[in-house]
Amino acid sequence: MATLYGLGVGPGDPELITLKAARLLRNVPVIAYPATLSGESMARAIAAPHIPEGRSELPFAIDITAPHADNRARYDAAARAIEAHLAANRDVAVLCEGDPFLYGSFMYLFTRLAGRWPVTVVPGVSSLNGAAAALHRPLVAGNETLIVLPATLPGDILAARLASADAAAVLKVGRHFAKLKRVIAEAGLTARAEVIERIGFADQRCRKLSAVADDAVPYFSVVLIRRATEGPQ
Amino acid sequence: MATLYGLGVGPGDPELITLKAARLLRNVPVIAYPATLSGESMARAIAAPHIPEGRSELPFAIDITAPHADNRARYDAAARAIEAHLAANRDVAVLCEGDPFLYGSFMYLFTRLAGRWPVTVVPGVSSLNGAAAALHRPLVAGNETLIVLPATLPGDILAARLASADAAAVLKVGRHFAKLKRVIAEAGLTARAEVIERIGFADQRCRKLSAVADDAVPYFSVVLIRRATEGPQ
Repeated sequence: MATLYGLGVGPGDPELITLKAARLLRNVPVIAYPATLSGESMARAIAAPHIPEGRSELPFAIDITAPHADNRARYDAAARAIEAHLAANRDVAVLCEGDPFLYGSFMYLFTRLAGRWPVTVVPGVSSLNGAAAALHRPLVAGNETLIVLPATLPGDILAARLASADAAAVLKVGRHFAKLKRVIAEAGLTARAEVIERIGFADQRCRKLSAVADDAVPYFSVVLIRRATEGPQ
Repeated sequence: MATLYGLGVGPGDPELITLKAARLLRNVPVIAYPATLSGESMARAIAAPHIPEGRSELPFAIDITAPHADNRARYDAAARAIEAHLAANRDVAVLCEGDPFLYGSFMYLFTRLAGRWPVTVVPGVSSLNGAAAALHRPLVAGNETLIVLPATLPGDILAARLASADAAAVLKVGRHFAKLKRVIAEAGLTARAEVIERIGFADQRCRKLSAVADDAVPYFSVVLIRRATEGPQ
């Protein structure tokens, strides 16, 4: 039976892909990936140097700014297109920004196909680890706890979750940035927060939250917060 | 000036190292890594296939089961030994299980040396992402929040933190496993929890928490919990 692969391609820099994902990209005949409605794919851009010529490519359009319910039919269609290849005995690799099981769109295909086909998931470097490395900023040390939360949550829930841990990594920031900035300010944590955009790309940008006047940043931006004011001693 | 590299080597499988870390291992002349008091090093074991013969190796003994204060002098000594190589214009790569900035021992060397020498941190696949991939178990989807917490915390704090999120990844489990099992049972989450030991090694073992009678598991074991009973739809 053909195998479905979920490949984490890491946070942005093509060199932050794993040896295992790079090997599979050399060998798997069909490569699927999420794209925007206008056809751009960050996952494809990250993996590009590792995709040999002549591969069958299967982009599937997802509107990441829309409510998830609006995308269910798109995932149904993508799963059917992938399954047609599997049924013809062709392995399929689905590319995923960061790690497939940390908010990755691959999970929606996994739910639809894992009971029917063999699946191998290759974990990737997630954007929060990539952000910490680029910012030279420890995520958590010793007995500290880290909350990972999507900026898409309502402000009061974001505030409660931020209060529950020693450090936070906020993903899916994009157009929720103004709300997030307000919540962080009300928690008194603005001075402890940093923003990183376009991790691992040539136009990567790192800033203190207090220095960012904009009300929106790119969707894949990450905000890191750590309460401790000293590095791990 | 020589550069200090912090290299995440991933959760266990040597093929889950990044291309960037593998390239640096081929080129950096001095390789440092944490080891137990008896000289075993998981980080060294993971990176082994990528370390060329003839490299200078600099193991530093850390007692990961002891209070951190007991290890400060060991990190001081390791930082001095590393600095001697940097001062002689030799780059040094410090290996780190998983990701350097997520509970990694590299952080204690980073605090001691980063103001004095150029540092490059190469993020790695962390054990929680490796665990999720091996267990075929999504960490978080959609609007869910994830708390990452060390099992070394007191039981009441573990309970409060577990209650504050939709999913949890518990690290540093080891001899704190009995306490953790009790806290998870009291939260009614035993049926939603899985344990993975020795991720990515030949003797990797995945079990439902309810099936584990032992009071201790290896230190680097991970427990994953997700409240949602369905996969992401």
